[in-house]
Amino acid sequence: MTQQELLTQTALHSWKQVISRIDEALKSLSDEDLQREVSPGRNRVFYLIGHLTAVHDRLFPLLGLGERLHPNFDELFLDNPDRAKADVLSAGELRRAWSEVNGKLTAAFEKLRPEEWLLRHNAVSDDEFAKKPLRNRFAVLLSRTNHASFHGGQAILAKKGEGH
Amino acid sequence: MTQQELLTQTALHSWKQVISRIDEALKSLSDEDLQREVSPGRNRVFYLIGHLTAVHDRLFPLLGLGERLHPNFDELFLDNPDRAKADVLSAGELRRAWSEVNGKLTAAFEKLRPEEWLLRHNAVSDDEFAKKPLRNRFAVLLSRTNHASFHGGQAILAKKGEGH
Repeated sequence: MTQQELLTQTALHSWKQVISRIDEALKSLSDEDLQREVSPGRNRVFYLIGHLTAVHDRLFPLLGLGERLHPNFDELFLDNPDRAKADVLSAGELRRAWSEVNGKLTAAFEKLRPEEWLLRHNAVSDDEFAKKPLRNRFAVLLSRTNHASFHGGQAILAKKGEGH
Repeated sequence: MTQQELLTQTALHSWKQVISRIDEALKSLSDEDLQREVSPGRNRVFYLIGHLTAVHDRLFPLLGLGERLHPNFDELFLDNPDRAKADVLSAGELRRAWSEVNGKLTAAFEKLRPEEWLLRHNAVSDDEFAKKPLRNRFAVLLSRTNHASFHGGQAILAKKGEGH
């Protein structure tokens, strides 16, 4: 492996690790557990998982990897707060969407070469990218991995007897 | 910049972004706020910040960057749960240690060249590293960035009126 490949493979491994930890947490939570707020008055785990699914789904167009799978999730989990619209979805539908989006996204990630990770993402213009080369797809991968960790840390609080 | 430099610079930028978000959250929390549990029966923000400080401090020897600054933090924030020993420290001491450790660590990170990020870290043997080249220092950087995001997501719950 070249240095570039080692660096991007390491980051991809980190993404997969974070997603699989949330997968495990989800498996250990019943559909009723998903209704629990992570702290009084805060988002339910149900909403956080929907929110992460919507944000990850948006990576398909943002990174030029194809069409997104669930454009309707934005209204439920991004444009509106918890309890406004989220509940049109069942827990089963949410769990399936989470797995499907991350599965297809990870498969698409695995095909990208290091030089492709360093291309601009679609929310930055050519001009701006010329000035700020760190606004690349790799930055988006790291940012979304951390975003998943951020809400994963909250979601785990709904698990009885586990804070850490 | 070479591809390798762009990749490691992007990751370092991500680390700095995560740390500075926690810095901002800390500034907005009073010493009394730090005593708040992130969810009923869970860790206080005080403990989470101490825990992150201890884990980051351990990166100095783990990554071959020098001696750690606060070896005593392990007993307070790693070997024991919240409320056992943590309170020998004042909020002011905790805030100073958090800033000092991350400041010195980030300065040391900035000096590392891409090829140095790809060296093994000190918790993996030469033999094991030969088989698993992804167990490098770069993996530790990404892992600790995500760990900080994970607990940062919890700590923010102690902030009134902000869940996200």
